[in-house]
Amino acid sequence: MAGVFITFEGGEGSGKTTIANMIQKTLAQEGYHVVLTREPGGVEIAEKIRDIIHDVKYINMDRKTEALLYAASRRQHLVEKVIPALENDAIVICDRFVDSSIVYQGIARGIGIDEVYQMNLFATENILPKRTIFFDIQPEDGLKRVYENKDREVNRLDLENIDFHRKVYQGYLSLCDKFPNRIVKIDASLDIDHVYQQVLTKIREIL
Amino acid sequence: MAGVFITFEGGEGSGKTTIANMIQKTLAQEGYHVVLTREPGGVEIAEKIRDIIHDVKYINMDRKTEALLYAASRRQHLVEKVIPALENDAIVICDRFVDSSIVYQGIARGIGIDEVYQMNLFATENILPKRTIFFDIQPEDGLKRVYENKDREVNRLDLENIDFHRKVYQGYLSLCDKFPNRIVKIDASLDIDHVYQQVLTKIREIL
Repeated sequence: MAGVFITFEGGEGSGKTTIANMIQKTLAQEGYHVVLTREPGGVEIAEKIRDIIHDVKYINMDRKTEALLYAASRRQHLVEKVIPALENDAIVICDRFVDSSIVYQGIARGIGIDEVYQMNLFATENILPKRTIFFDIQPEDGLKRVYENKDREVNRLDLENIDFHRKVYQGYLSLCDKFPNRIVKIDASLDIDHVYQQVLTKIREIL
Repeated sequence: MAGVFITFEGGEGSGKTTIANMIQKTLAQEGYHVVLTREPGGVEIAEKIRDIIHDVKYINMDRKTEALLYAASRRQHLVEKVIPALENDAIVICDRFVDSSIVYQGIARGIGIDEVYQMNLFATENILPKRTIFFDIQPEDGLKRVYENKDREVNRLDLENIDFHRKVYQGYLSLCDKFPNRIVKIDASLDIDHVYQQVLTKIREIL
């Protein structure tokens, strides 16, 4: 596949979505074909799965059910959108991918890293991003941004307590150590322009 | 767990649902606590997942997405309904379980038996039925019953051609050979009372 697969990872309120939009605009102006997408979702079947995952009604959802639904959504999104775009030479920037499952379900929910990773191989067939940007911000600061943003819809994951989000954060740091070639860390606590500049630099390195 | 876990397997129109209702009635009259349930579905979250799987609109659903959705539905159903019922000494009769995934996704859709089985271990943690009844009927005869039943809703799997259903049938036969202690075959081509008697006998053997 001739395209470039890039993923953005980080806790809630780390600014991934905002920056992704800015990066897309910049790269598109330079003539790149940039596909911006997100998980869970991005295509109709995956969005329907996302609706189940995020529904605040389903507080009794088992953690393994949740992990399998994320993987199902991931698979459909990959086959229907990411792979065709990469075959079409696009830069695909995806908001969340397998690392999110490893951190949220494997570590924070305690299923286990290896178990979640192995199950996800069924979905991804080992397709991994060329670069993953980790938006590094303390969970307390990220959540503060979320609650200050009145337009953002509350979903089932927002109901988790701060301990959960701390585990997510620690999980991401351990993934950064484990995959130093693929995952690069940027300081997401800075103002938006500084975050944008860091991310753009990290992306330019691989284009 | 003190209860008895029994699953019914077979192609479309093999009579599983009808017989399950008859068996439940008989055993309940004898004082057994019988829980009748089905896959995919059986609890609210799983029914929502079932709706996505069965939606005739989603003809572009990837076969691995489908397999992951079945596993997600299975997991939630197991945790929320099957395991609690077994812990409560019930006889649980479940219309379809892991064997369906192995046969439909692993064999008929061609993902591979081992790959589907391994992924499902994530969902089931190796919980298997004490007895599985395979309703043996030629796919042509089963489908004839389906089409003659005007009350039955058409779902996405009914749109498959006869070759698909023949692969499903052959798949079940090979599972019968592979697990002769767990899976017993009954002749589901006979009239309903004869099918019922065979199934009842096979269930009584393990009570």
